[in-house]
Amino acid sequence: VPRYKLTIEYDGTGFVGWQRQANGLSIQEALETALQRFCGEALTVFGAGRTDAGVHALAQVAHVDLAREADPETIRSAVNHHLRPHAISVLSAEPAPPGFDARLSARMRHYRYRILNRRAPSALERGLVWHVAPPLDAAAMAEGARHLIGHHDFTTFRDSLCQAKSPVKTLDALEVSRSGEEIQIEARARSFLHHQVRNMAGTLKLVGLGHWRPEDVARALLARDRRAGGPTAPAQGLTLVAVGYERPSLY
Amino acid sequence: VPRYKLTIEYDGTGFVGWQRQANGLSIQEALETALQRFCGEALTVFGAGRTDAGVHALAQVAHVDLAREADPETIRSAVNHHLRPHAISVLSAEPAPPGFDARLSARMRHYRYRILNRRAPSALERGLVWHVAPPLDAAAMAEGARHLIGHHDFTTFRDSLCQAKSPVKTLDALEVSRSGEEIQIEARARSFLHHQVRNMAGTLKLVGLGHWRPEDVARALLARDRRAGGPTAPAQGLTLVAVGYERPSLY
Repeated sequence: VPRYKLTIEYDGTGFVGWQRQANGLSIQEALETALQRFCGEALTVFGAGRTDAGVHALAQVAHVDLAREADPETIRSAVNHHLRPHAISVLSAEPAPPGFDARLSARMRHYRYRILNRRAPSALERGLVWHVAPPLDAAAMAEGARHLIGHHDFTTFRDSLCQAKSPVKTLDALEVSRSGEEIQIEARARSFLHHQVRNMAGTLKLVGLGHWRPEDVARALLARDRRAGGPTAPAQGLTLVAVGYERPSLY
Repeated sequence: VPRYKLTIEYDGTGFVGWQRQANGLSIQEALETALQRFCGEALTVFGAGRTDAGVHALAQVAHVDLAREADPETIRSAVNHHLRPHAISVLSAEPAPPGFDARLSARMRHYRYRILNRRAPSALERGLVWHVAPPLDAAAMAEGARHLIGHHDFTTFRDSLCQAKSPVKTLDALEVSRSGEEIQIEARARSFLHHQVRNMAGTLKLVGLGHWRPEDVARALLARDRRAGGPTAPAQGLTLVAVGYERPSLY
């Protein structure tokens, strides 16, 4: 059975998230419907990151098994044709290397959380940023973020619905920077707990506002208690930027 | 009568353009309605650039006369409140200097035309870019653009509905650059003819595709005939970036 690797961009606004659900249209279902229109058979698409409702992707990675081989460029353009008018775009389709599984083979997930930090709400990027009106101290947020990098029990930043077996994860990077009116939080790890990036972003906002000191983030982490962390930042500011695999030359 | 200068961001998608029209909602009408809800009186908003349907603004400038003085920050936040759920945001409101007229006092208008140049259509910036799939040669486009800079009769790039008295304008800048998959055309002039930027962008695309040589742009300009120019690029790629005034310290 020929397996294909798909790289997908989407605007998560209005979708129930990546994963198929009964209560609305998911990215996965929209993709599966478009692929089915192309190849005439029911199939399942497996994604690397199960993004929440309203979360976006610049380069989600997924795999799908087709009944027959097809030209990758034809898959890409045909699926994009059938995806209209949804805000989902297949950037590339390529034959997957042997044993490739978009989720299980993934070694790195890179998420970006965007905060628009100015008085006026956004008009051109509504739905793509979290609007925070009071001035945020990005340097303090960056200092707070450094306490979270490394191998830790992230229970404080884990949603109660999280299905991961263990709350222990290795956070490879959590960088906060300001560019004009926008603050970006870049988070990289092999995998994340449910709502982990949004819970870290909501906590760092408290540091940015001056309600917390940077070292309070370390205290919250050590508490291993969700109630010790800040609130969950809204979904719309979050984007899955990239997924990395072990052998970039092959994958 | 106290006059205020407003700086406004908007996503032009779904609007009939800046100017009030019978056939749909304009940015101007949405702003006037919101201002009227704030101050209780009918009023008119005058904008610096009459953007077409689907054209966006990062910083449109407008002026409005209110019956009574009001705190600028209160105007800004109240109008934004009444503008919901429209994709229009007042970035700032400030008392206008004596004699200020958003349109007549303007000395520079800066527009950006964005082209997404890749095979796959955009998901995250649909409505904000022109999707052109075949590879474009940005360097050739930049060379073609240089033929248009300066004081010229721009009849070739003027829409038949243009109401300007003269087709002669001074184009101060027309810069083409590529950043990854995106090509940006930056155009600056004291004022533009109707559809001028979009007609120049549609012509430069022909150069980028290799259908025209860069020097063919000069030939088209000299023809002073709209039929000698390229097609009109779609509205959605165009954004009014900034409006400049004579005395930046005052205005």
